[in-house]
Amino acid sequence: MRTIDWQDGVIKLIDQTLLPHELVLREVADIETLIADIKRLAVRGAPALGVAGALGVALLAQKLADPAAVRREAQRLREARPTAVNLSWGVDQALAVIDDGADAVLAKALEVRDADIRACVSMGLYGAETVRSITGKEQVRMMTICNTGGLATVERGTALGVIQTLLEQGSLTQTLACETRPLLQGARLTAWELKNMGAPFKLIVDSAGPFLLSRGAADAVVIGADRIAANGDTANKIGSFSLALAAKYAGVPFFVVAPESTIDMQTTTGKDIEIEDRGVTEIAELNGVRTAPADIEGLNPAFDVTPHSLITGIITERRVIHLDRGQTLAETPLGELRVAAQ
Amino acid sequence: MRTIDWQDGVIKLIDQTLLPHELVLREVADIETLIADIKRLAVRGAPALGVAGALGVALLAQKLADPAAVRREAQRLREARPTAVNLSWGVDQALAVIDDGADAVLAKALEVRDADIRACVSMGLYGAETVRSITGKEQVRMMTICNTGGLATVERGTALGVIQTLLEQGSLTQTLACETRPLLQGARLTAWELKNMGAPFKLIVDSAGPFLLSRGAADAVVIGADRIAANGDTANKIGSFSLALAAKYAGVPFFVVAPESTIDMQTTTGKDIEIEDRGVTEIAELNGVRTAPADIEGLNPAFDVTPHSLITGIITERRVIHLDRGQTLAETPLGELRVAAQ
Repeated sequence: MRTIDWQDGVIKLIDQTLLPHELVLREVADIETLIADIKRLAVRGAPALGVAGALGVALLAQKLADPAAVRREAQRLREARPTAVNLSWGVDQALAVIDDGADAVLAKALEVRDADIRACVSMGLYGAETVRSITGKEQVRMMTICNTGGLATVERGTALGVIQTLLEQGSLTQTLACETRPLLQGARLTAWELKNMGAPFKLIVDSAGPFLLSRGAADAVVIGADRIAANGDTANKIGSFSLALAAKYAGVPFFVVAPESTIDMQTTTGKDIEIEDRGVTEIAELNGVRTAPADIEGLNPAFDVTPHSLITGIITERRVIHLDRGQTLAETPLGELRVAAQ
Repeated sequence: MRTIDWQDGVIKLIDQTLLPHELVLREVADIETLIADIKRLAVRGAPALGVAGALGVALLAQKLADPAAVRREAQRLREARPTAVNLSWGVDQALAVIDDGADAVLAKALEVRDADIRACVSMGLYGAETVRSITGKEQVRMMTICNTGGLATVERGTALGVIQTLLEQGSLTQTLACETRPLLQGARLTAWELKNMGAPFKLIVDSAGPFLLSRGAADAVVIGADRIAANGDTANKIGSFSLALAAKYAGVPFFVVAPESTIDMQTTTGKDIEIEDRGVTEIAELNGVRTAPADIEGLNPAFDVTPHSLITGIITERRVIHLDRGQTLAETPLGELRVAAQ
């Protein structure tokens, strides 16, 4: 099942706010509903938001004859999550062919969807091969954080896609999934995906990850990325830095898995990435139940920045950049898109 | 207000299961209630449990004329939390004078209580002085994890006692308190204590701690200890290791604050400390609400072990052992018990 897709003239998407307790596939037939669903995180994950943006414009193009009207409405869609670069990117992809009519827009949106699917397959293949090669093991125990699976893309995912590929290739013996405070994407979404794919896994609290790495509990760590700077510094969910530091300490390879579109050569280093603070409520309450005293302050960085010196390599759909061997994003050539043997 | 005390012939204790929402002082007049309160964690924290053990025997001695009967009942008290070394220790302290009568037992139990209070004052004074001296700053920003405050002792606490002393001495400008998953002792108890003492503080998720240290957000880290091995390796709440590793990376001093009784010279290194796994439910549920899918596995180490190489120093009520200068527990002499200037 795809996280987001186009079927019978409407967008279908998994309502991620109901997971892991309920799997509900929503039919989204108008732009208001899509905007609301994006805002309340029913659909999330950078690649999935890109596809949502493109499909949203396709929805508009089917209802509005005037390209100017589509552009106007698309602007509102873009603003549903202003900081999500991929959402804007997906909107732009579809808008680029608006003058060619609704069918062309839909074709373009489906192309965005299909490209995402192919990229995830390719990342998984590059990643699984790289993990086996670097660890020198045919059977590996992996660790990951946040949700970087099919729920963050159309299907399969980025870092979790590598784990799925290892599973399919008979190479996965264990997965340690960090729960990912404060919003528990690991406990809610990644655990649900791992369970569904039949992968061996155990849930851990985030702060257990570094210690377990120091005690040899995993052979490699894979994480996704929100943004990768030109020097390889990587912004990702809070907690990524501490895993990278412990992996380095323990001599465990640490990989960032993300599509080429995540690489931002305009951002020189991680120091240039501004870190959003999401406020204390996410920390002090869970499911509306207060766990901390009232009226306190918090510091809630949504993500952290892992310096390139702590990253073994970056895996995309077109290449592996071995940062630990001195390879750079600027100089490493793009390779082929890998296709699964059927 | 003391976490546990003796008043008017009964034990009074703060019911910690109701914090931070309600402050209830319980009167415990019989041993059954005390055993139940210990089991359900109404009273917790190694030093506080030691005092509970001693006061519990005092309670028994007042009701039972026969020393053999007191010993028999005391055995049940001891077994309320069989792995809590301090509980047994407190029971033994009071039992040692049982042949001298109920008054002698009570006097001994109050001595255990008073010694705990004095030890916390002294640790705070040693700690505050050491933090200022090592950082070279009169005004410091601290980070800590778990609850090591008055709620874990009779009053003031160990690591949090150092923070309180810094506050009282006008040296505290910020405290970053880790929420401490899975049981949230930081969010529930430490935040409550910091708020009550009027300390400046912000609550953070555990995995933000290491990253914030790397970005210079704290001048020093203080933690408590469950057990300190002969070489300085320290067992403490899960998450301590990752803070120590990040502190080392960031050049931030990292101190363990614990009474001398926590030092176990029979345990050679941290490798000899067995780590209790507390099961998946603590991770997968909060306040009875399931956050992860049903029927999954977890790995839930209750504490981790920080190698002595990552620890700047150990602060007790009688000395500071500067591990980073090559000092050892075996060779560092005991100093004076410090007393607050009044």
